[in-house]
This record gives sequence, C-alpha cells and structure tokens, in this order.
Amino acid sequence: MPRTRVHNLFVSADGFAAGDHVTLERPIGGAEALFGRFDGRVIDGVHGIDEPVTLDRALFSLWGQGVGAEIMGRRKYGPQTGEWPDDGWRGWWGDAPPFLTPVVVLTHYPRESIEFPNGTSFHFIDATPEEALRTAQEAAGGLDVRLGGGPTSVREFLRADRVDFLHVAIVPVVLGGGIRLWDDLAGLEERFTVETIGWASGLTHQLWNRKPAPARGR
Amino acid sequence: MPRTRVHNLFVSADGFAAGDHVTLERPIGGAEALFGRFDGRVIDGVHGIDEPVTLDRALFSLWGQGVGAEIMGRRKYGPQTGEWPDDGWRGWWGDAPPFLTPVVVLTHYPRESIEFPNGTSFHFIDATPEEALRTAQEAAGGLDVRLGGGPTSVREFLRADRVDFLHVAIVPVVLGGGIRLWDDLAGLEERFTVETIGWASGLTHQLWNRKPAPARGR
Repeated sequence: MPRTRVHNLFVSADGFAAGDHVTLERPIGGAEALFGRFDGRVIDGVHGIDEPVTLDRALFSLWGQGVGAEIMGRRKYGPQTGEWPDDGWRGWWGDAPPFLTPVVVLTHYPRESIEFPNGTSFHFIDATPEEALRTAQEAAGGLDVRLGGGPTSVREFLRADRVDFLHVAIVPVVLGGGIRLWDDLAGLEERFTVETIGWASGLTHQLWNRKPAPARGR
Repeated sequence: MPRTRVHNLFVSADGFAAGDHVTLERPIGGAEALFGRFDGRVIDGVHGIDEPVTLDRALFSLWGQGVGAEIMGRRKYGPQTGEWPDDGWRGWWGDAPPFLTPVVVLTHYPRESIEFPNGTSFHFIDATPEEALRTAQEAAGGLDVRLGGGPTSVREFLRADRVDFLHVAIVPVVLGGGIRLWDDLAGLEERFTVETIGWASGLTHQLWNRKPAPARGR
C-alpha cells in the first residue's frame, strides 16, 4: 500500500526545522546552519556523485525512491504571502526543479498549474491533509507520496495521523529561533516505532515508522 | 564517474560469505543462516513493502539505485560446473529475474545470451575483471555497475583494485565453513575509508569506500 513519507527533515538541537523569516534573498529564512551537512546531490541516488557513500548519504538518498508525487507547503514553494503577485515566480529551483513528479502545493490561493520539461509540475490547491493526499495519491500512480515540508505542513499531517514514515536528522546546532517541528504533538511517539542512529558525522538520524492501525490486528 | 559497487554482501562472524556446496536443492550451499535477517523485497526500494523502513532495509535498498548492469560469478547463476549441460537452465530466478539490467556472467565456458521480458539479460563471457568491467560499463549506459558476487568474484575484483564501494553486513552467526570473503586481501583497509554501524538488529554494517587514486592528489 502506498505510503506518505517525509525525508531529510533537519531539526536543530533546540527543535527548529526552518527559519521564520523566509525572503527572496534568504530561502532558508535564517536556518542555514541546519543544512551544512546535507549533500543535496544525493537525493536522487548515491550514484550521482563522486563522493563516498556514507551512512548519511545512504539515508538522504531514499528521498526519491519509489516516490510518485510530493506535497509541499506554500512557503517551500516561494516567499510570497496572500494573493499571488503577477511576478512570474516559478519556484526556487530554476528551469529544472528536482522533484521530477507532480507536486501539490498547499495554499489558500489556488492558481494555474505550472509544468516543467523534466516531469516536475506544480498544482496549487486549498485542501485539508486528507484531500491533499487523495490528490497526490492519484497523481502518484501507485507509488508513494513524499510530504516535502516545511515543518508546519509536516506537523499538520502528523496531527492528522497521515504520515507513515518520517526521517528526522537532528543537527548539533542551536538556532535560537525559527519554526518548531514538535509543537502540539505530545505523545506522538505512541503511534510510531522509532530507530535512532547517532552517527560520527554529528547527525542523529531518527526513522519514525507508523505502527499498523489497531483495526488491522497485530 | 560510474562506480563499481558491491551491495548486501553478508559475512558470518567467522568470515564466510557463501556455502561451499551449492546444489540445485541448496542454492545457498549451506550458508542459509547468513540470510535470515535479509528482506530481499527491498532491493528495488523501500516503497515495495508494507514493513517499517528500518536502517537495515534502508541500506539494503541501495542495491538497485543507479545501477545499469551487474557482473556475477558463474556459481551465482547456477550450480553447474564445466561445459554447460543442455538442461534449459535459465538461472535460479524463474521468469522474472530481479536484475532488470544486462548481467555479465563470468565463466570459462561462454555461451549464447539469454533475455527476459523484464529487461534482465545474461551474457556469458570468459574475461579478466578489467575486461568484464569494460563490457558491463558499456552495457550500463553511464550508470554504475554492481558486482553481484559471489565472494570469489568479489575477492578477485578487490585484488584487482576494481571495487569502488562495498557494503558488507556482518551477521552474528558462526557457519564453521564455506567460502571466505577476506582471504588473500591483507592490507585491503589501506585502500579504503570504512564506516562501521553496529546495529540493534544484530547486523554490523560496513561501508567501504575506495580512496581516490593518488594521482588525483590527496
């Protein structure tokens, strides 16, 4: 059965997973230190780079494995708020966004879809997590759906119990501010099994796997 | 640059990576205990199974990532020795071998290639590691080549310094006999960096990455 997966979600030692003042100049919004150990080139596989296949890179590389669509929050797509300005914005990623699949962008301001030659397309909808998932699952054609963040969207889907897998990488930096991942999620661990791998790189990887629903027995 | 990679090579506590009496009835040749913790369904990605995405499965799932061809020893392909009998043998895997790419089978007895509808094809050549690699790299179309084993072939390629990445999983079982992985490789560690992950499953994962050639500096 297709899953809803979150990959490469970086969290600071003090629990922040994104900056809180994203601008055109600062797409990470003040949380740049979170990504110092992240080699983004491996998201489509360990074969694309001429660097050692480390544990960190092996886990990062799961990002695209068997994923047929992504869901992202509006803030991940761009810095604008409110009504979309007529500014020709097509996302942060230039002419070849790395997603290579349909991407559902959650926004209260729906607009026309945008398509790229490399298979990436953005579809803007105002929807609950359940509705967004249905749309993304249809687009994914039987493959898994990746929930791409940011942390506010991930938290919303976690509260709705719609996340099957979550890879968190805890980074030993103290940001002092930003968007918290774990707010309003007390007791989350009861719904998951968690493997924790403290690693020599300084990262702590956590693999959260949702327990089977009680109705399915065990 | 394309690599030559070995994945999911299981080694017992006493250093054996395969049985030494492979027959039609016992394809693993007495080393069955090596594979008790291996979930073979994840070799093409973590999305194909309805089980938790654990560290073990995440590492196993790298097997097919960016691989365009495999090289295997004859013993992995079948139990026969010497001249090929006229027995209609098409490998252990039935009508849909899991490789999905060209496979170069090393044998002193070349024969006609065999093709399957799912993209797997077997090509039988009598070649040195260098020659086999050239053939496999041409077939891989710019992707990586997986060296599929068994341990005798892996050892031969390690001796020829033709392995760029090696994922060994040490299994806490004592086999008492079989084919050794590490024979005649004293000092191998000098040519590699190694990450070791002892894991709660009982497996110890080692990620061997070949150091850059001295000519490239370092």
